Amino acid sequence: MADLITVDDPDDPRLSDYTGLTDVELRRKREPAEGLFIAEGEKVIRRAKDAGYEMRSMLLTAKWVDVMRDVIDELPAPVYAVSPDLAERVTGYHVHRGALASMRRKPLPTAEEVLTRARRVVVMESVNDHTNIGAIFRSAAALGMDAVLLSPDCADPLYRRSVKVSMGAVFSVPYARLDTWPRSLHTVREAGFKLLALTPDEKATAIDQAAPHLLERVALMLGAEGDGLSPRAMAAADERVRIPMAHGVDSLNVGAAAAVAFYAVATGSPRT
Amino acid sequence: MADLITVDDPDDPRLSDYTGLTDVELRRKREPAEGLFIAEGEKVIRRAKDAGYEMRSMLLTAKWVDVMRDVIDELPAPVYAVSPDLAERVTGYHVHRGALASMRRKPLPTAEEVLTRARRVVVMESVNDHTNIGAIFRSAAALGMDAVLLSPDCADPLYRRSVKVSMGAVFSVPYARLDTWPRSLHTVREAGFKLLALTPDEKATAIDQAAPHLLERVALMLGAEGDGLSPRAMAAADERVRIPMAHGVDSLNVGAAAAVAFYAVATGSPRT
Repeated sequence: MADLITVDDPDDPRLSDYTGLTDVELRRKREPAEGLFIAEGEKVIRRAKDAGYEMRSMLLTAKWVDVMRDVIDELPAPVYAVSPDLAERVTGYHVHRGALASMRRKPLPTAEEVLTRARRVVVMESVNDHTNIGAIFRSAAALGMDAVLLSPDCADPLYRRSVKVSMGAVFSVPYARLDTWPRSLHTVREAGFKLLALTPDEKATAIDQAAPHLLERVALMLGAEGDGLSPRAMAAADERVRIPMAHGVDSLNVGAAAAVAFYAVATGSPRT
Repeated sequence: MADLITVDDPDDPRLSDYTGLTDVELRRKREPAEGLFIAEGEKVIRRAKDAGYEMRSMLLTAKWVDVMRDVIDELPAPVYAVSPDLAERVTGYHVHRGALASMRRKPLPTAEEVLTRARRVVVMESVNDHTNIGAIFRSAAALGMDAVLLSPDCADPLYRRSVKVSMGAVFSVPYARLDTWPRSLHTVREAGFKLLALTPDEKATAIDQAAPHLLERVALMLGAEGDGLSPRAMAAADERVRIPMAHGVDSLNVGAAAAVAFYAVATGSPRT
């Protein structure tokens, strides 16, 4: 059972996990370095806990102490009870869902470990927008993708915004970082995956014609909104696939394109 | 050719189309009442113009006067040149893409008119989030849906945020409002459309098994994020369809679900 500690001083060092949450640059450095991430809101906190992440502490406003009572009783991590005003002064924003938890990161698995157990893998290159990362994980989980591999310059799936947009899917879909890019893609191919590069290029194969759902192991490569996959990544793929699109309109946004591609990869597979 | 008028006074009545743009409630009332909408950013302004909307005026910072020179030369609408600071004082926010245009609305077509020329229709119920409306229009345009029908309580597709997120797709995909809900759905069925209601319910037919791409005319019904379609709307549908999803995860967000469903409706159709 946790200690419930009322804190009135925004400079209390015990709150340091939660300081400056709106400073993206600062948190991007601090969180991996200190081995923590922030889960926000009841549902996401519970999912982090259920996924086996260890809780360092919680920061709760009075109303949420009651809601989280069972978690407080179950876990030993200290719980800091604060006023909404203090929460705002510490974090830098109005904590709308007045429950935050600082969770301990786990060591990431290697790409090889992740690939062993997977048949349908998402590979992201340079997706550095936290909202997009979160949305892609959410769709990946819902549509039956088994794992995610990230190029070295992708954003952190455990950043607060990614976690929130993913609705906690970043906890349930295993992921790993590829350490050399695009060279590490060989590892993926050697593990028996066909590498499909998603592109809006009309010369690519229509994804339904590529019939990815009939393949034993598929790695679907996605680039960032706007630029898409780099030429080097394209060159490393086995086949280029496109979502059939009407002429004369902008391509789909990356979240919508990813969802459609995951569906094309999953549908007709033994799972459905 | 337009008059280029430098304005220094934020209270200049000629700028009234642009006042208080961050006040959603105010703008929601004013814009339809005054028959205008706001297009933001070069690309979206050009698309509004190309789609045949009449320009009332433009509000540009110096840099954008050059970029929009051809439009200024072509159209008679007055152009107000302002400083970035004045733009912010008038609109209420920092106008990042320093180009705004006030455009005249056109009378909406009736549902019957829209249906005459369409084979693949999106029907939205109670989608009152401007971002979601915009995202759905963007995907609808990209994935070959021909038209959109809106329940009376859907948000305005011409609200600034919807227009922006849609990348102008709200100009290219014809849409109409249904005046009685869900009674007007009979009109859709009478026009020869099969009404498919999208739901996460596992008892519904998997959308690939419903084979909507083989139907002559399809109306795909979508509800809002969270609640989904109302029981009344469900009851008015011909068939309930679901996107096959992995167990134990939250459903897709409405934008991702819509994109997947549009793909399922379009793929295999003669267009692809």
